[in-house]
Amino acid sequence: MHNNLETPALLLDEGRMQRNIERMQNRMNQLGVAFRPHVKTSKCLEVVRRQMAAGARGITVSTLKEAEEFFRAGVDDILYAVAIVPNKLDHALKLIRAGLRLTLLVESVAMAEQVAIHGAANGVCYDVLIEIDTDGHRSGVKPADPLLPQIAAALQGSARLKGVMTHAGASYDLNTPEALAAMAEQERSRCVAAAENLRAAGHACEVVSVGSTPTALSARHLKGVTEVRAGVYVFFDMVMADVGVCTSDDVAISVLCTVIGHQPDQGWIITDGGWMAMSRDLGHQSHGYGLVCDADGKPVDGLAFGKANQEHGVLQWTGEGDISQMFPVGSSLRILPNHACATGAQHGQYHVIPQKGGELKVWPRFSGW
Amino acid sequence: MHNNLETPALLLDEGRMQRNIERMQNRMNQLGVAFRPHVKTSKCLEVVRRQMAAGARGITVSTLKEAEEFFRAGVDDILYAVAIVPNKLDHALKLIRAGLRLTLLVESVAMAEQVAIHGAANGVCYDVLIEIDTDGHRSGVKPADPLLPQIAAALQGSARLKGVMTHAGASYDLNTPEALAAMAEQERSRCVAAAENLRAAGHACEVVSVGSTPTALSARHLKGVTEVRAGVYVFFDMVMADVGVCTSDDVAISVLCTVIGHQPDQGWIITDGGWMAMSRDLGHQSHGYGLVCDADGKPVDGLAFGKANQEHGVLQWTGEGDISQMFPVGSSLRILPNHACATGAQHGQYHVIPQKGGELKVWPRFSGW
Repeated sequence: MHNNLETPALLLDEGRMQRNIERMQNRMNQLGVAFRPHVKTSKCLEVVRRQMAAGARGITVSTLKEAEEFFRAGVDDILYAVAIVPNKLDHALKLIRAGLRLTLLVESVAMAEQVAIHGAANGVCYDVLIEIDTDGHRSGVKPADPLLPQIAAALQGSARLKGVMTHAGASYDLNTPEALAAMAEQERSRCVAAAENLRAAGHACEVVSVGSTPTALSARHLKGVTEVRAGVYVFFDMVMADVGVCTSDDVAISVLCTVIGHQPDQGWIITDGGWMAMSRDLGHQSHGYGLVCDADGKPVDGLAFGKANQEHGVLQWTGEGDISQMFPVGSSLRILPNHACATGAQHGQYHVIPQKGGELKVWPRFSGW
Repeated sequence: MHNNLETPALLLDEGRMQRNIERMQNRMNQLGVAFRPHVKTSKCLEVVRRQMAAGARGITVSTLKEAEEFFRAGVDDILYAVAIVPNKLDHALKLIRAGLRLTLLVESVAMAEQVAIHGAANGVCYDVLIEIDTDGHRSGVKPADPLLPQIAAALQGSARLKGVMTHAGASYDLNTPEALAAMAEQERSRCVAAAENLRAAGHACEVVSVGSTPTALSARHLKGVTEVRAGVYVFFDMVMADVGVCTSDDVAISVLCTVIGHQPDQGWIITDGGWMAMSRDLGHQSHGYGLVCDADGKPVDGLAFGKANQEHGVLQWTGEGDISQMFPVGSSLRILPNHACATGAQHGQYHVIPQKGGELKVWPRFSGW
């Protein structure tokens, strides 16, 4: 059905995506928490509409561009989950004045003060979460850090502390159900502890927001948590397959590419899907630039995507037979990405394989800041 | 001057770019060859206009989207330097019918036949180069391969063999002037040998096209070569600095980012410039995600960009002092990219620092296929 498509092209299997959306939303319903999907993975209105229809309450974004695009499309409750800096406050203000319920993130006294000052100067009361570090993988304040109530105090005036949020990104490096469940519990318990510390210091802390795809799918209970965020689950990818929370059969996006030549003495099949189409993301280094599948999406044993130039993929064949006969010039292959967020970002649209069959649809996606 | 810019943002130092353009064009003039810059690096009309004004004759592209965009802007002599496949022939035909002098690339008998058939069916005679493999790094036919005259023969009818082209991509892994000069001579001599083999078999072979930034800057003579292609020289990057054909002072693009937080116990400075702003390209693995500079573009010793998430950069400080004082929240840093083509592709525009001073200009760039 995609024979006439110019390659490389990003394919989206709508049926798989819909199953992924329902699986996560059902899980959140069972755990009794609100779900606020992180839309940085798709940056696509059609995808987000389906997440909202399934039961999401608000969305999470990684850029103010995402906030702007999705607000324009009618999503009015958005968490911007990267710590705010001064050069972005005017943009945030503009969105809030236009009617968006935007929640900002801070992780320092210095920035809490700036947010309060900017709010006061502009007659706006910003809604703010404090970022909590529950796994040492990146940013945020430790739950017991005395800075935590100081940040809350610095907000007072023209900003309102709504609560705390954390992201257990360290879960991406785990690969057993036990380790994932333990990380989910660590994420939950430490974020709840941070909220309790703030409450003990006299601050209201209504929102306790946690999440990553691996921990969201591995938590046994979420006592004290009010909402969960997760993003990549919507498409899944080979990193998530390595972590063990999906299989390659769940991965909903793939890059369609075409064989453009061979180097038979090297066992190389050259395609027009290079790093520009895949991104340079090597994931856990276990699948090269992605898992090579045939035109129908079935993995091809013995074909590894080890090397990529800008518009060339170099696939290494380790099996028997004549590669120029098995994979002739002009034939199609599909590559499952290591990291759906990174591969998606290289493309301006999804070519959607409809759930109910029929012609491909085109769903635009955006990028930038 | 860029204090008000929302970050991350891609900066372009126009003065450095102009020097890079003049350096390469002067060298090509001295070597007595036509220069056909590869515009996949910038994908920006303002940049290409300056390359043409300096003396370029035609351009090289990596996608038909580039061909379409630059043809629309008036560039009418374009080499599409990735082997053509059947699903792109209708697009190529459309551009040719609109008046573009487009040259296609083939590297197999099968595709040469398809090109000739498509031309005959549509009443067009395609101009074609054959890709030659001069360094074993990727695609193309070896100069003495008996396939070479077979491909030329397969083109006859509704396609015209214009000549041969090669790209010594293996030069990116070298780092001494002697090795680079030797690779440039290998690229030249093997591509010329391929042309001679075709001529001996009775085929006209007017064009002998070679090039990569390192070999173009290292060739001692280019006897028998008619044109050179190079792309990344226009901006340069840390990979090219590692190769030794530029210094970090020549690198014309950088990603402006803002400090959003700290983890003092780890020595981490967190910024809003993650892999979405830098790409995942680690180059030669010698500068992390890029070389960290201060707001004026001067390298900061002791600060390494080792880890990146989608919208977070994690910089490791190995020096003395209080990082939250030295690099306070809200302060600016600039990161020189490993690979200009990859970093540029993550952005929709350049914020240009004008050669003659004054306000930043915005130059759009495009992406996709």
